[in-house]
Amino acid sequence: MGMPLELNTMIVTKGREERLEENLFRLEKDGYRLYPIDVPLEVKKYIEGDTSGTGFIRKLEWSEKKTVIIYQLVSLYTPN
Amino acid sequence: MGMPLELNTMIVTKGREERLEENLFRLEKDGYRLYPIDVPLEVKKYIEGDTSGTGFIRKLEWSEKKTVIIYQLVSLYTPN
Amino acid sequence: MGMPLELNTMIVTKGREERLEENLFRLEKDGYRLYPIDVPLEVKKYIEGDTSGTGFIRKLEWSEKKTVIIYQLVSLYTPN
Amino acid sequence: MGMPLELNTMIVTKGREERLEENLFRLEKDGYRLYPIDVPLEVKKYIEGDTSGTGFIRKLEWSEKKTVIIYQLVSLYTPN
Repeated sequence: MGMPLELNTMIVTKGREERLEENLFRLEKDGYRLYPIDVPLEVKKYIEGDTSGTGFIRKLEWSEKKTVIIYQLVSLYTPN
Repeated sequence: MGMPLELNTMIVTKGREERLEENLFRLEKDGYRLYPIDVPLEVKKYIEGDTSGTGFIRKLEWSEKKTVIIYQLVSLYTPN
Repeated sequence: MGMPLELNTMIVTKGREERLEENLFRLEKDGYRLYPIDVPLEVKKYIEGDTSGTGFIRKLEWSEKKTVIIYQLVSLYTPN
Repeated sequence: MGMPLELNTMIVTKGREERLEENLFRLEKDGYRLYPIDVPLEVKKYIEGDTSGTGFIRKLEWSEKKTVIIYQLVSLYTPN
């Protein structure tokens, strides 16, 4: 009767994010994932890749074995 | 930088649930609350009160320091 | 890089609990499981079985892909 | 009947860690805190400070409104 979930500490997009507004993005993931909300998180394209910026999750939604997050990208890392 | 949350193991409505459909209800709570989803939970009007039924959360949403759950009431406890 | 865990809302012993003291028990489970601590939980021998009592987890420990809980059995359900 | 907890995504020591072995440390925190275990986490002295290394939590313990973690420091950041 337990509920499986995955604890996530960064946003890994795999390039599947959709831009909703200027710096607001929507990302859908399989399964129920627990992300901290309203705190700064690293945003990356791939787990092993470099950080592409910092984001704040503004909304998290669980239903039908999926997790949807809406996050705000607040700074973009630009390598020199 | 931690994120405060509350782990909940039952649905306590305080009579504030809204009926959306036949046996589907919407309940809004203050703060970010973690509830197990898709597993049977006791539904109660008050913490100290009797169980009024069993429900399954079908959707959980966190945003703006609020938690919204949509739950399906599957059995109603009827005292003799 | 996510961490899999299971959210549990009751204590299911499968008869594997060890008595440490009068009403204090130790139970080991596979994997990392999140249980609410210091709140009353149903204690059952099997998921589908009847409740055998109410317990409070007093200690939870995660290491080496195992969860150990120490719980206090505060009331024993006795069917008439 | 909810259980308050704090979701943490990095290890902030405030200089209060105790060295147990070569690269193994023990840190005690107030309250119940949920940290991902067995995954790489940033280790910092202060929230606003620089990262001092990467650590893996190897044990997490909750009891008496305290959280104790044992972590392994695997890389130390050394500024030039």
